[in-house]
Amino acid sequence: MKNYFSIQDIDSLPNWVDEAIKMKKNPLSHKTLGVDKTIGLLFFNPSLRTRLSTQKAALNLGMNVIVMNFTGEGWSLEYGDGTVMDQGNSEHVREAAQVVSQYCDVLAIRAFAKLENKEDDYSEKVLQSFMKYATIPVINMESATGHPLQALTDAITITEHKKNKKPKVVLSWAPHPKALPQAVANSFVEMMQHTDADFVITHPVGFELASQITKEVPIDYNQENAFKDADFIYVKNWSAYQDYGKTKSDGASWRITKDKMKLTNNAKFMHCLPVRRNVVVDDAVIDSKNSIVIEQANNRTFAAQLVLKKILENN
Amino acid sequence: MKNYFSIQDIDSLPNWVDEAIKMKKNPLSHKTLGVDKTIGLLFFNPSLRTRLSTQKAALNLGMNVIVMNFTGEGWSLEYGDGTVMDQGNSEHVREAAQVVSQYCDVLAIRAFAKLENKEDDYSEKVLQSFMKYATIPVINMESATGHPLQALTDAITITEHKKNKKPKVVLSWAPHPKALPQAVANSFVEMMQHTDADFVITHPVGFELASQITKEVPIDYNQENAFKDADFIYVKNWSAYQDYGKTKSDGASWRITKDKMKLTNNAKFMHCLPVRRNVVVDDAVIDSKNSIVIEQANNRTFAAQLVLKKILENN
Amino acid sequence: MKNYFSIQDIDSLPNWVDEAIKMKKNPLSHKTLGVDKTIGLLFFNPSLRTRLSTQKAALNLGMNVIVMNFTGEGWSLEYGDGTVMDQGNSEHVREAAQVVSQYCDVLAIRAFAKLENKEDDYSEKVLQSFMKYATIPVINMESATGHPLQALTDAITITEHKKNKKPKVVLSWAPHPKALPQAVANSFVEMMQHTDADFVITHPVGFELASQITKEVPIDYNQENAFKDADFIYVKNWSAYQDYGKTKSDGASWRITKDKMKLTNNAKFMHCLPVRRNVVVDDAVIDSKNSIVIEQANNRTFAAQLVLKKILENN
Repeated sequence: MKNYFSIQDIDSLPNWVDEAIKMKKNPLSHKTLGVDKTIGLLFFNPSLRTRLSTQKAALNLGMNVIVMNFTGEGWSLEYGDGTVMDQGNSEHVREAAQVVSQYCDVLAIRAFAKLENKEDDYSEKVLQSFMKYATIPVINMESATGHPLQALTDAITITEHKKNKKPKVVLSWAPHPKALPQAVANSFVEMMQHTDADFVITHPVGFELASQITKEVPIDYNQENAFKDADFIYVKNWSAYQDYGKTKSDGASWRITKDKMKLTNNAKFMHCLPVRRNVVVDDAVIDSKNSIVIEQANNRTFAAQLVLKKILENN
Repeated sequence: MKNYFSIQDIDSLPNWVDEAIKMKKNPLSHKTLGVDKTIGLLFFNPSLRTRLSTQKAALNLGMNVIVMNFTGEGWSLEYGDGTVMDQGNSEHVREAAQVVSQYCDVLAIRAFAKLENKEDDYSEKVLQSFMKYATIPVINMESATGHPLQALTDAITITEHKKNKKPKVVLSWAPHPKALPQAVANSFVEMMQHTDADFVITHPVGFELASQITKEVPIDYNQENAFKDADFIYVKNWSAYQDYGKTKSDGASWRITKDKMKLTNNAKFMHCLPVRRNVVVDDAVIDSKNSIVIEQANNRTFAAQLVLKKILENN
Repeated sequence: MKNYFSIQDIDSLPNWVDEAIKMKKNPLSHKTLGVDKTIGLLFFNPSLRTRLSTQKAALNLGMNVIVMNFTGEGWSLEYGDGTVMDQGNSEHVREAAQVVSQYCDVLAIRAFAKLENKEDDYSEKVLQSFMKYATIPVINMESATGHPLQALTDAITITEHKKNKKPKVVLSWAPHPKALPQAVANSFVEMMQHTDADFVITHPVGFELASQITKEVPIDYNQENAFKDADFIYVKNWSAYQDYGKTKSDGASWRITKDKMKLTNNAKFMHCLPVRRNVVVDDAVIDSKNSIVIEQANNRTFAAQLVLKKILENN
């Protein structure tokens, strides 16, 4: 593995999950592995969990950390080939990526979907450009279409909490006042395809994720039916893929309630956070003992730390 | 002590001051105490001294430091219980505080008064919420109503410079073009109540601080009278507490001048900084040899370092 | 050397270049020199290379690094003597510089020209004020009129790539949609005056740099003529010094093309970056094997590291 761009970069998900859980028991077990190595974290968007947990993971491995908010602290980047750069962008990603590669040993980048143009977002312009021109490993801290550090976190969390060998896991759409990217849902779906589980997606008609990602995963348009006997309810809003970036103004009936959770097999409630209470999920659910969102967020550190360990060992 | 929220969290002010002065002589005396521990500094407002001195203090103790500007770099937070979060705020402090607690060992937070609503500010919504939900110690880097790192700094500075056992200390209001919080003045008053001194507050009528804070401290509405025989003149602007957040457009006569300083017992001039020259205080005063504002700012490091040491030792 | 403000602070450029090239071969050769020392990087403007390479240089020397974006994270500064500070600025540089000096061991500052007033910019208000009031060494990370870390980088890069003892080096103006400072060009010219080379500047009439800087350096208003037999083409846009801050809307003919490069002695192409492709320079030139802009940017680390090493050894 050179880059950690997507779930497909994991050679064996079960092995990675086992290794991460082992690392979690002794976070400082490899505290000299990253000594004299520097990770650069480049943010094009806000971040709380990713910003802090990735720093913590690097520190646990003894690395130096340099954080940069690209918007504002640096120069606005051009991505097009052959562009006459007489407009707003001051620097081409060709130079930026090559230059930064000389100051760091690993690069981690967050660049959300803009939700203006499907082709632009799904071409992964920012991450693909950095991976093309960087001469060091690149880690995806949530790109336009994927959030593989979150999905690895989710695999760890499900493994820790599952009570039977093949749990039923439901990815449920939920309402949100703003149009959100599909990144978290996409990577969760990809991750689940490498997991031994009874996996089903439930969402309103029109909110189908990209078929090249969902492939054969069953979709149930009836949320209550999908919840029956579930062991894990993984909740996330996303805007439409077909009618790209559109969201649903009348989606309130998809909110996660106590009554819906009663349909499950005493399921654990998961969400990547941040979450809008009483819009996406009722207080009564997120504050219940079955909610594992805080433990889930804690695992962000160990997902990042495992990815960094793999990269440091292989490069 | 779990949190350092206010001056009331200090068990013995004289002992803390002595210990800080001792630490100042050998700042690296405990440089392994914080090894493999991480402090997260969360800023909701600008900061120069607090930002740098708290980082320096943590580094002196061998800690890792993660700095985050919550405004802009993270998600806007909701504090209300039971809120339907369909407006601007993306994340509830319940999740944010619990999550951050898992990535750090100590949290330090700056969140100024908004000066829009007295009850909101004096309920200390931000700091109290973080202290309620965080599972790690929380340090106040200036909240809506207090700035206890500054007040501990001031206690250290007064102790270093006092020439008699019971000095006369005057807290004087001074003019300012903008409405400012009462936080620094409040904590200074609370700190002085634990200090052996002849303490008096002087300000224009209408600028009384909260009576639950000032208690029995004498107030003199005549600035020149208050200055007589003073050993320390501590200057700060604050907006009104009664007519909440209002300031005084004709307060220029309260500016600190050379002539007023001549009324004192060769008093030291103190201010927490930043200070507006020739509005709050004349150049001739702040540039005089009696001005100790720079040494005072230097003590910010040792106040923060002592608080961190106490927290690291007790947790 | 106390401060590194300009190229004039280098006692022997050839010795410094040799030492930097030696350090580049073993960047961690002095990794304990800066232990328990802290550098504060203060940015008043955006930065990519300077921000990251200076951090990397400090880390290579074992230093602690504190980065602060002064705009936004701190208080807006006043520089005037005797000002009645009743307007927008909250803090005077006198206090800011003295205070920061107590938390750090070295200070590095970036403060660009505003291009509004020649006297203001060429008085170097920000850097000179910090150097006046700071009690620790100050490093120029690009000021209004100079960028000496870049120029030292350029000296290193030319030395590494030159094929004859006295190469022909051309500093060529190139077009740009925005008015840019003269800082990089100024420091390059100053540096070349300490370098054994056949040095010529070429630019359109009206774009003469300050004569107190260019002194006896020949100027050729004919770009193609200047390029003949050149070993190095160093390209940079700058706005006019005489008609201060004005730029040229019809400068497109000055763009660096493959055909112009053919006039040279197989010259290396240099630029400090960021660069606007196909405005300043054609893709065919910057992407050619003669372009050394990426290696040049890499040398930023070693220029900064050498300056820091000199400062740490001398203070």
